[in-house]
Amino acid sequence: MPELRKDPVTGRWVIIATERAKRPSQYSKVVEERRGGFCPFCPGNERTTPPEVLAYRPSSTQPNQEGWWLRVVPNKFPALITDGVLKRSGRGMYDCMTGFGAHEVLIESPNHEQSYGDLPEQQITEIIWALRDRIIELRKLEGIRYILIFKNWQREAGASLEHPHTQIIALPVVPKRVQEELQGASKYYDHRERCVFCDMIQQELSDNQRIVAMNDTFICFLPFAGRFPFEMVLMPREHTAFFNDIQKKHVADLAAIMRKVFGLIREALDDPAYNFLVHAAPFNEPGVEPYYHWHIEIIPKLTKVAGFEWGTGFYINPTPPEAAAKFLQQVEARLNNGGDADRSVARIASIH
Amino acid sequence: MPELRKDPVTGRWVIIATERAKRPSQYSKVVEERRGGFCPFCPGNERTTPPEVLAYRPSSTQPNQEGWWLRVVPNKFPALITDGVLKRSGRGMYDCMTGFGAHEVLIESPNHEQSYGDLPEQQITEIIWALRDRIIELRKLEGIRYILIFKNWQREAGASLEHPHTQIIALPVVPKRVQEELQGASKYYDHRERCVFCDMIQQELSDNQRIVAMNDTFICFLPFAGRFPFEMVLMPREHTAFFNDIQKKHVADLAAIMRKVFGLIREALDDPAYNFLVHAAPFNEPGVEPYYHWHIEIIPKLTKVAGFEWGTGFYINPTPPEAAAKFLQQVEARLNNGGDADRSVARIASIH
Repeated sequence: MPELRKDPVTGRWVIIATERAKRPSQYSKVVEERRGGFCPFCPGNERTTPPEVLAYRPSSTQPNQEGWWLRVVPNKFPALITDGVLKRSGRGMYDCMTGFGAHEVLIESPNHEQSYGDLPEQQITEIIWALRDRIIELRKLEGIRYILIFKNWQREAGASLEHPHTQIIALPVVPKRVQEELQGASKYYDHRERCVFCDMIQQELSDNQRIVAMNDTFICFLPFAGRFPFEMVLMPREHTAFFNDIQKKHVADLAAIMRKVFGLIREALDDPAYNFLVHAAPFNEPGVEPYYHWHIEIIPKLTKVAGFEWGTGFYINPTPPEAAAKFLQQVEARLNNGGDADRSVARIASIH
Repeated sequence: MPELRKDPVTGRWVIIATERAKRPSQYSKVVEERRGGFCPFCPGNERTTPPEVLAYRPSSTQPNQEGWWLRVVPNKFPALITDGVLKRSGRGMYDCMTGFGAHEVLIESPNHEQSYGDLPEQQITEIIWALRDRIIELRKLEGIRYILIFKNWQREAGASLEHPHTQIIALPVVPKRVQEELQGASKYYDHRERCVFCDMIQQELSDNQRIVAMNDTFICFLPFAGRFPFEMVLMPREHTAFFNDIQKKHVADLAAIMRKVFGLIREALDDPAYNFLVHAAPFNEPGVEPYYHWHIEIIPKLTKVAGFEWGTGFYINPTPPEAAAKFLQQVEARLNNGGDADRSVARIASIH
């Protein structure tokens, strides 16, 4: 019998629908044709992007020329723009605001092929430092209330360029979904004087059924009430509200767990499209630190989100998180034994 | 400069991003290959679906045989099931419920090709009556708190079968997105003692910039803070909380405006995938009638929803609703003048 599960943070109900899991077309992958052609993010093409706002490069090289190992540039087609000022206005009964903010692209490495699952750990630590650097810079902008870090991998997940990149958006409002988490976490804290995310970590360690990876500092698991098959959450084991407060000694641990988790996703699910999102506390929100706990959401795009989900905010997840975790553990064991994981078998195993 | 707009019901902010609108690949249609093959919903194949729970058919014909002009059957792969009872339980810190509910499919007509945009108006009135009949029946189920009507058109929007059908799900909880609307509408009513949806209708009539279609009883417009290009909302002009309270004399008006709007969407946007959702007040919610106003959401799937949207509940709409409305009006004028709309021109016009 299908089961309804409630997300302990937001109160959102999810259907864990075992009956539907049997639909054979469920995970048929949209084959991503390589688009090839000119890549504005590859070395040598620096002049085709807006001028870099940050680059890690030897001091012997010039800005906007080759030699960098990491580069951040403004998005050429920004959703929000830094020119102008934040101005609110009314239009009849409706409320508006000028589209003030920032939208940047972090080019993860000069390599057109490698991303979080294949880059050397050292390069992933560089990405983490660069994200932190940009947050610290962008939060100085007048009127900015939230900075969102996200990555769309492959066209199915919304990427418009192949070269691996992560995006940074600085927003004049706190996004609705983060607000929901804040409200839920704050309510939980009021009742129990504990962080709901810290409690989830304890629960996951005690259940030991949904954990994907763990090290001294971080844990990655499939949420009990996950909306999507193989949806994961990755968070620091110690309570921390802000991503940019990450300590130097913990950066390598984050890079290591990211490489492991994304490598596993690629192997187990045949390099699926995915979205990667960092949720952290908003700036200038007094009292938020005790109850909010920053985390990363990882959402492989294995199924279409249908009208039911859009219309209700009520999701049907055809793969129980426990089954998904078990499958990932099996793939990992095979990989550790030096065996090349048979992906076609893997695919089928993940469905039944 | 891009603009931020706030949805007056839920408080959700949307970026109306004119800069991004120029990206030419934005609306490239995923060509839907016809899958053909066996169709369980076509006449003659009645035995391959679960037995019908409702059919409009001549009294001379037998249930689950040919002759019907409309048929409702349980979903063969239901998200929720009617067997068993609603039972709540805790699992550590987590909350669960048995997956009790109903999930039905309304086969819109014997015709494999025609849907809301091409069916005769008379057949659409039959669909409306059948939906109403099923709501009245399903709300008798113990523990049901909400009934959602929706339609996924084409695979891109989540459809798994081609034959036009609409789905009905009876849920033991009120979905999160409807709860948000209820909270927002209730708050608005507390302040002003008016329905926010009624006020929106007045505002739209006065602005006269976003209306797509209208008759004596219904109005269809593009919401001021629409999340998606060409997103529309269709609602009764008179305040009504429940879809199933629709009066007999108004059913023909709803059928007429549905046919018109969906015909226009097909012509103007090259038969796009879409989702269709009915939002109505939940049952057993005391005091809801003065402030909630039932409506239909229509969401053509023209762009991919990217990580940014998932992670934030904060949407980027690359086409201002006013531009979309103007474009639809032009297509309609061409159609009324007997001219065959040039769809390729139409496509490009909708982007710039």
